[in-house]
Amino acid sequence: MEPTEYSEKHRVTYYEADFTKRMTLAMMLDVIILASEDHSDYLGVGADFVREFGVTWIVIQYNVDINRMPTVDEEITVTTKSKSYNKYFAYREFKIKDENGDLLVHMTGLWAVMNYEARRISSIPSEIVTPFGAEKVNRVPKLMKPLKVDLDNSNHRRFSVRYTDIDSNKHVNNAHYMDWMINVLPSEFLTTHSPVHFDLRYENEVKYGTDIESHYNMEKLESGNILTKHEIMSGDKHCTVADIIWQNN
Amino acid sequence: MEPTEYSEKHRVTYYEADFTKRMTLAMMLDVIILASEDHSDYLGVGADFVREFGVTWIVIQYNVDINRMPTVDEEITVTTKSKSYNKYFAYREFKIKDENGDLLVHMTGLWAVMNYEARRISSIPSEIVTPFGAEKVNRVPKLMKPLKVDLDNSNHRRFSVRYTDIDSNKHVNNAHYMDWMINVLPSEFLTTHSPVHFDLRYENEVKYGTDIESHYNMEKLESGNILTKHEIMSGDKHCTVADIIWQNN
Repeated sequence: MEPTEYSEKHRVTYYEADFTKRMTLAMMLDVIILASEDHSDYLGVGADFVREFGVTWIVIQYNVDINRMPTVDEEITVTTKSKSYNKYFAYREFKIKDENGDLLVHMTGLWAVMNYEARRISSIPSEIVTPFGAEKVNRVPKLMKPLKVDLDNSNHRRFSVRYTDIDSNKHVNNAHYMDWMINVLPSEFLTTHSPVHFDLRYENEVKYGTDIESHYNMEKLESGNILTKHEIMSGDKHCTVADIIWQNN
Repeated sequence: MEPTEYSEKHRVTYYEADFTKRMTLAMMLDVIILASEDHSDYLGVGADFVREFGVTWIVIQYNVDINRMPTVDEEITVTTKSKSYNKYFAYREFKIKDENGDLLVHMTGLWAVMNYEARRISSIPSEIVTPFGAEKVNRVPKLMKPLKVDLDNSNHRRFSVRYTDIDSNKHVNNAHYMDWMINVLPSEFLTTHSPVHFDLRYENEVKYGTDIESHYNMEKLESGNILTKHEIMSGDKHCTVADIIWQNN
């Protein structure tokens, strides 16, 4: 069985874009998650079905290559497929293309399932994964883990987790972690650079009403590109870690 | 000439909705502004054309009646028309309907144009308004002004204006003022009440990198509904003022 592929179109609007007229990274994450949810619903294995097994899908990690960020009023096509899975992890691919069919963004991601009662990772029930037609493997591909931030020598800023950070899944929206990472960077940097790659790993959830600290280090790579390393801390808890590589506009 | 009417569909997604699965008020404002921009583009009097006259449209005020907020995965239809205008103001109407054609939200709004150089309100060039087919009048309808907040006895919270608060129009997104108003209210209140009406008036723009203070008072009305009065202050400057009426879910 071949993996099933699912596609949907999305128009990038003024409110999904930043000062540079490019779609924000957070918005891009919202849109690819929507495609994966719609894919699941289409196959009859949506959130309600999955809940019957006492579990919910959680995203562990993304690796993302960006040829060009989508811009305002472009109609992009998001395509996704589940490529492989093993006992604990499912490996999914996304492509974002422009109206000419040119590849803008290529993403891979690693998902797991969390048991509601135990609040921990459990094995993936075959009923919720086989409909995707992914290959069952012993080992899913290893994804590059983001580098650790030097917290003693980081720039950082505190953010409060707001009511509007929670989406209809009743958790803090995953994409908002990316916004906290972006919002510590200087605006002069953000308006003059574009992201070309990022690795992001979710480790612990942040809760409504708490404060988080968004840390970063910035360094110049030999290529001339800039690397920013990010970490979201909630007290002593490491919540999310990411690397972003930027090039000059 | 009859006013031209413009409609577009919008699917409410998980990331546009809050804990209650209802679309956020801010998202609703983003979507109606999109419809008005698309209406202008369709008539050939979009932002670029308007800029040739040295001006830009700015929204002054909204009055909004809500029968029911749109919820996740509904496909809503937003319809808008420009109803009347005079030398300085244009009066626009919006309707949001569900898939059965039932009216969810009725809005009226007042727009003006700002001269870029003078940074002040100027008379509306006829070229940018006549294509809408609105009636030229001496007086546009008066919209209810929101009540003032008692700033000495308000609850308030400070917010920083972030990079991601700026949208591709290169200003702080108008809908984010609404988020600052919502995010001061207690979550227990927000999850148990729904908005049925609001009046919102923009007075001064807030700037990136500054802090704003979001104030509110809450009182019970004779009807049993709750009134929250809101004010966004930037230092001594009154930026946005709003009233929201809520009913128990």
